[in-house]
Amino acid sequence: MQSFLSVNDADNIPQLIDLARSIKKNPLQKNLGGHLTLGLIFMNPSLRTRLSTQKAGHNLGMNVMVMNFSGEGWALETEDGVVMNGDKPEHIKEAAAVIGQYCDIIGIRSFATLSDRQKDYDEFVLKKFVQYAGVPVINMESATVHPLQSLTDLITIEEYKTRPRPKVVLTWAPHPKALPQAVANSFAQWVQKTDYEFVITHPKGYELAPEFAGKATIEYDQAAAFEGADFIYAKNWSSYTDYGKVLHQDLNWMVTEEKMKRTRNAFFMHCLPVRRNMIVDDAVLDSDRSIVIQEAGNRVYAAQAVLHSIIQSTL
Amino acid sequence: MQSFLSVNDADNIPQLIDLARSIKKNPLQKNLGGHLTLGLIFMNPSLRTRLSTQKAGHNLGMNVMVMNFSGEGWALETEDGVVMNGDKPEHIKEAAAVIGQYCDIIGIRSFATLSDRQKDYDEFVLKKFVQYAGVPVINMESATVHPLQSLTDLITIEEYKTRPRPKVVLTWAPHPKALPQAVANSFAQWVQKTDYEFVITHPKGYELAPEFAGKATIEYDQAAAFEGADFIYAKNWSSYTDYGKVLHQDLNWMVTEEKMKRTRNAFFMHCLPVRRNMIVDDAVLDSDRSIVIQEAGNRVYAAQAVLHSIIQSTL
Amino acid sequence: MQSFLSVNDADNIPQLIDLARSIKKNPLQKNLGGHLTLGLIFMNPSLRTRLSTQKAGHNLGMNVMVMNFSGEGWALETEDGVVMNGDKPEHIKEAAAVIGQYCDIIGIRSFATLSDRQKDYDEFVLKKFVQYAGVPVINMESATVHPLQSLTDLITIEEYKTRPRPKVVLTWAPHPKALPQAVANSFAQWVQKTDYEFVITHPKGYELAPEFAGKATIEYDQAAAFEGADFIYAKNWSSYTDYGKVLHQDLNWMVTEEKMKRTRNAFFMHCLPVRRNMIVDDAVLDSDRSIVIQEAGNRVYAAQAVLHSIIQSTL
Repeated sequence: MQSFLSVNDADNIPQLIDLARSIKKNPLQKNLGGHLTLGLIFMNPSLRTRLSTQKAGHNLGMNVMVMNFSGEGWALETEDGVVMNGDKPEHIKEAAAVIGQYCDIIGIRSFATLSDRQKDYDEFVLKKFVQYAGVPVINMESATVHPLQSLTDLITIEEYKTRPRPKVVLTWAPHPKALPQAVANSFAQWVQKTDYEFVITHPKGYELAPEFAGKATIEYDQAAAFEGADFIYAKNWSSYTDYGKVLHQDLNWMVTEEKMKRTRNAFFMHCLPVRRNMIVDDAVLDSDRSIVIQEAGNRVYAAQAVLHSIIQSTL
Repeated sequence: MQSFLSVNDADNIPQLIDLARSIKKNPLQKNLGGHLTLGLIFMNPSLRTRLSTQKAGHNLGMNVMVMNFSGEGWALETEDGVVMNGDKPEHIKEAAAVIGQYCDIIGIRSFATLSDRQKDYDEFVLKKFVQYAGVPVINMESATVHPLQSLTDLITIEEYKTRPRPKVVLTWAPHPKALPQAVANSFAQWVQKTDYEFVITHPKGYELAPEFAGKATIEYDQAAAFEGADFIYAKNWSSYTDYGKVLHQDLNWMVTEEKMKRTRNAFFMHCLPVRRNMIVDDAVLDSDRSIVIQEAGNRVYAAQAVLHSIIQSTL
Repeated sequence: MQSFLSVNDADNIPQLIDLARSIKKNPLQKNLGGHLTLGLIFMNPSLRTRLSTQKAGHNLGMNVMVMNFSGEGWALETEDGVVMNGDKPEHIKEAAAVIGQYCDIIGIRSFATLSDRQKDYDEFVLKKFVQYAGVPVINMESATVHPLQSLTDLITIEEYKTRPRPKVVLTWAPHPKALPQAVANSFAQWVQKTDYEFVITHPKGYELAPEFAGKATIEYDQAAAFEGADFIYAKNWSSYTDYGKVLHQDLNWMVTEEKMKRTRNAFFMHCLPVRRNMIVDDAVLDSDRSIVIQEAGNRVYAAQAVLHSIIQSTL
């Protein structure tokens, strides 16, 4: 693995999942990365990604440097050819190249603008960063995907599934603020690399971009979608069509104990942070069918498997 | 030791002090915690606690991850059963449990609200965090106590005392802003586990909560309290009775060189940060009787003794 | 080396450069500092200094603790004798001394006020910090100098020079905001410790302080200055005479491809961050004569050589 920007960088997903699960049994591999530096660059806040990727690096013996561009640094210019006389004192070209001088692998988080769809879906910022960094880059959530999360999700489904071809349902759920489509896009993309039965359910207007929805079954009736499901994966996202907009916050789409009764005693998953009694009710989240904490725990092993693969193949 | 939330978690205080003092002579114990991760979670700013606890973890060979919830993360919801449609995107239930997935021991700092006395004195936030973290928790100052500071203070008094039963005086001092009672509460509580002579002096209206004041002698006349003291421990706190209020900023309560003359050439202590010429005048703070820096230095060994005890007994 | 505050702390610059270049070949020296703690204190944002000094510490096996006073801490009082009843809860006397309790070496960044020239040029804040820290201090850019940058610059010139006595030109360039003179001052000071030919060029009104300009040739005609240059070192600074003011942002002083033609195919240097098409045009910065990234990369080895020298001589 050269870099880990999206599902396309994972040649062999079952093997990557196996690697993560074997690392989970013996996480300390301090000799592998003792000579290497991992830089984690955050353009946006983060809890799970921050701590789990840091821990994965430490498990590999790496020197881990974390930097928040807002607060510790400054805004970066990403456009080419501009006269930089505004509030952005540095261009991403220099910033990426310099960080690449200090780090053997760089993780970067940079959210969608939610205002310029083309730029977001071109992964304009991530691509620029990768172009100039000169070292392997790990996507810690970009404008359109969150592959460390999706790898984690597959690891978790593999751990908990009770039949070879589980029914996995990705359901939209209400949220007060506009959120990116990244987690949903990425989940849809990765799940379709497996042979799970996969259904996406959401209100009209919340259709994912065709390249991410792929051949998934789209079901506008949430109740129908839940029938016989083994895993309910909830997530809010803003509209792709009416880009970045919250069309409504219909609480009828909240995942409730009542709705979960339609499932095959499904496990409940969410990438977190999750808004209780908006996305999902307390009863579901506090039940023993909720595996959101175990899912978050697996973030370490997903990140470590990715770092491990990059170290093995390139460093 | 399972966790370190208050004086009640220290079974044997003299032994804990001895451990800290022996660690001070040989602080490097890198083999003890080389396989463990310490997470330090700050809901509020911090200098001494941040650096000293981090260093204690490093002395033990631990992987230390520091996270500031404000700035690097987001505000946490702490109430149960609410519809989370406001500005708090994550519930403390999930946040604590997730951090517990990544850390073997968690230190948490979360100040008093100073508005809701019952919640503060129930240690509502700390208790929630502990309940869901699932791993040992160290209190890095909570709503009502600051036990790492108090343990440090006892270590320091033990180092500097010149007679077996020194007279220790906790004096209120003026400050422009409302501060929690935590340091004063905790100091009163820990000192009363020793056999020092202990006097608390403060203006009327600044009485500590009865459960913390305990059987300490309360003396409203600061000059009388200072008579024959071996240690003057100054601290501001806001009113417990008129909760969270600054009743006045009477500069007559400042610790001055003149007032120190009444003591037995007492040492001056303060947890820092300290406002010069409000809490204490320059003459006292710059004199060789001030041991505030040495006291701050001991924060490392207090934290390391606590981490050491938790590692020895639980991990 | 006891501390590294300015060029005056470098007894033997050629030897320090040689040390840095030999470290660059074999950067991992984990046994040298495995028992030591490096504290990096930022009063202002930083990218290169933050990451490169952190990495240098890690290369030496040191425990590195990074703290941002704004955000993670609070503003420090630096004046003596004041009644601290305002918005600065801690005096630099205590803060420095306490950090000195936790760290074997402290790096500090604290920019110029650009309002009080005498205080800035007395290095009021840095001196206070050094006075009270009680341990070796590394200047990570202060009010008037940035010696880690200048050492880096000499290392870089030594690497790239093609004749024994290259012509080095420091040129002022336009910028929308008022910047300190520190990088320019320091560069002028260090270069004059070598036997390079050295010319400073800037518009009238931007004269550096005499103690830093030294015996450098001052040339107000930028085109004339560029003639036959081997290295063009661009930097903006605000006025020293009309202290801290931006007198104008004359884009005619931008370094352009056209202007570079007058040079001996000079290398382009800048400390970064650099504003494209203000300081320098894209054509120069994107050309293979620009060595700004390699220069930034050398920050690690400059910092490591300094840390190495301090460790060898004092710890």
